[in-house]
Amino acid sequence: MDEFTLIERLIAPVAGSRADVCLGIGDDGAVVRPPPGEALVLVLDTLVEAVHFPRGFPPGDIGYRSAATNLSDLAAMGATPLWATLGLTLPQPDVEWVRAFMAGLQAALAPHEVQLVGGDTTRGPLCLSLQLTGSVPESLALRRNGARPGDRLFVSGFLGDAAAALASLSMPEPMPPGAHYLRERFARPTARVGLGQALRGLATSCIDISDGLLGDIGHLLAYSACGADLRVDHLPLSPALVELLDADTALAHALSGGDDYELCFTLPPATPPAVVGALRQHCAVTEIGLITTERGQLQLRDANGPVTPPGPTGYRHFP
Amino acid sequence: MDEFTLIERLIAPVAGSRADVCLGIGDDGAVVRPPPGEALVLVLDTLVEAVHFPRGFPPGDIGYRSAATNLSDLAAMGATPLWATLGLTLPQPDVEWVRAFMAGLQAALAPHEVQLVGGDTTRGPLCLSLQLTGSVPESLALRRNGARPGDRLFVSGFLGDAAAALASLSMPEPMPPGAHYLRERFARPTARVGLGQALRGLATSCIDISDGLLGDIGHLLAYSACGADLRVDHLPLSPALVELLDADTALAHALSGGDDYELCFTLPPATPPAVVGALRQHCAVTEIGLITTERGQLQLRDANGPVTPPGPTGYRHFP
Repeated sequence: MDEFTLIERLIAPVAGSRADVCLGIGDDGAVVRPPPGEALVLVLDTLVEAVHFPRGFPPGDIGYRSAATNLSDLAAMGATPLWATLGLTLPQPDVEWVRAFMAGLQAALAPHEVQLVGGDTTRGPLCLSLQLTGSVPESLALRRNGARPGDRLFVSGFLGDAAAALASLSMPEPMPPGAHYLRERFARPTARVGLGQALRGLATSCIDISDGLLGDIGHLLAYSACGADLRVDHLPLSPALVELLDADTALAHALSGGDDYELCFTLPPATPPAVVGALRQHCAVTEIGLITTERGQLQLRDANGPVTPPGPTGYRHFP
Repeated sequence: MDEFTLIERLIAPVAGSRADVCLGIGDDGAVVRPPPGEALVLVLDTLVEAVHFPRGFPPGDIGYRSAATNLSDLAAMGATPLWATLGLTLPQPDVEWVRAFMAGLQAALAPHEVQLVGGDTTRGPLCLSLQLTGSVPESLALRRNGARPGDRLFVSGFLGDAAAALASLSMPEPMPPGAHYLRERFARPTARVGLGQALRGLATSCIDISDGLLGDIGHLLAYSACGADLRVDHLPLSPALVELLDADTALAHALSGGDDYELCFTLPPATPPAVVGALRQHCAVTEIGLITTERGQLQLRDANGPVTPPGPTGYRHFP
C-alpha cells in the first residue's frame, strides 16, 4: 500500500466535517474560514518514539496523547480548538497501526470538534508533529507574563501521575488498580480546554504543566518578573499516587515530573469564592500558593515553614 | 546547552516581526491576527534525513528546502504566506547546526515576510515538520479539481533538475558548472509564490510538482475527472540537464523526477496571449499540453504522434 492509498483509506475518512472547513485533506493545502474578529492561536508539538513514549507503545495512545498535549497548549492560552494538521513519519505503512493511531487521535480531537484538515505522511523513524489552530478574542488570550504579587496560584487536577506512570509501565502483571489509573494518565492525559476558556478575563497568567510544576512555574515567574511561595503540603496528589509511592517520591513526581498537562494559573487576590467555585465545574482546581515580589524566587513551604525541593527540577530534552 | 537555551538563543531572535503577530515564540502558543475577510490556507511538510535529503546534507540547505517545499504548497493554492510553526527533532543540540539551519530557513521565508511564531524542539532522529499558514480570498483559492476539456496545460520553470541533482550529488569534484546548478535546484528550490497569486481568478486548476510531473498531473486529472494530451517535446528542460544527461534520461527525469516544486496549472482556452505573457513577469511559463475529455487518460505525444513514457511514474514514499 503506497502513501496516497494509506492517506486516502485511513486518514481522510475520519477527518470530520466542520462548517468552517472549505477544503480539507486532498489538495496542496487546506482552506479554512477563521472566526470573524478573533485572534488565532497556533501550537505544534512533536512526539518521538523512545523519547516521548516507550518503544512499542500502543498506537491509539500515541494518537490520543499527541492530540492531548497540543490541546493542552491551546487550553493554556484560553483558546477554542479548531483545526489540526499532522506530520506522521512511519518506518513502514502499517495499516493496523495507522488505523489504531487515527482512532486514538480522533478520540481526543472529536470532543472538541477539531477537524484534521491536512498534513504529510512520510517514511522514517517513528515520530509525529501535530499542529493545532485555535481561536480566542485577542485581548483575552491567557499569557505567562501577567502574574502580579499577591495573586493566588492554582493548579488543575492531580500532579505527578504521569511521571509515576513511566515507572509503573515496567511493573509485572497483574498491576495494582492504581497503576492502571496512572498509566492512563500518562497515555491519555485530559487537556483542560474547558477550564482554559473559563479562565478568559479571570486569570492573570496561565501555563500548562508539560515540563514539571517547578520548571513551568519558573517560566511563569520569569515572564511575569515575580516570585512565588508554593505550599508543598497543598499539592493535589491522586489516591493512586499516594497509595503506590512513598511520600517523598510522590512529592518529587508532583514537583518535577513532566507530562501532567494540567493548567497552572494565577487569579487576582480579590477573586470571589463563587468564581473559583464555578471553575470547578470543569475539573478539580486547587490553590497551591501565592505570587510574591521576589523576582525569580520560588520558595517551597509547608505548614512548618520553608522546605527544600527533592529531586531535579523540570524536564529537559537535552540534559 | 539545554532545549530552552537553544531555542532562545538561536531560533527566537531570527523569527521576524510581523504587525499581525500579537505574541510569537515563548508562550504556550502564538497569537496572530488573520487578515479580515480572507480564508486561511494550512500546509505542513515533513523532511526526514536519508529519505528527503542525504545524510550530512548542509543544514542551511535543509532549512531552506523545508521552507521552499511548504511555500510551494501555498503557491499552488494561490495563497499569501503569513506564519510558520516548526517541529525540529535533532540527535543532539548542535549550536552550529541549528544556526546554519535557521539561516537557511530564514533565507527562504524572509522574502515572503513569513514569521516563525512557534513550534517544538525535541531530541531524536534528524527530521522536521514545518507548518505554514497563508491567506487567500476564499473564492480565489486554486484547486486541483477545476480543469475542463479544452483547457491549456502549463508548467513553470524547468523540469527534472532536482532528480538529476540527486545523481550529481555523488559526482567527484570538480563538478561541471551545470552540476552545481542542478544541486542548487534540489537544495534550494524556488517556490513560485508570485506566480501562484497571479493565477488567482485565471487558472482553472493548479498543483505543485513534488512527486513528478506525470504523478502530479495524474492527481489533477483524477480530481478534475478529465484526461490530458502532454507534448513531451515541449517540456522545459534546463541547459544543464540537456548538457549533462542523455536525451532519454533527461526526459525521464522531467516526466517522473520529484522535488521540482514547479507549478502545473490549466488556463481556459480563450485566455489572451497578453495574460499568459504577464505571468512570465514571475518566472518562465511553458505550455505543455491540453486537457481532454478522456477521464484519467494521460496521453504522451511528440510532433510525430503518441509516445510511451520512459521509466517509473511519480515518487512514492512507500514503494
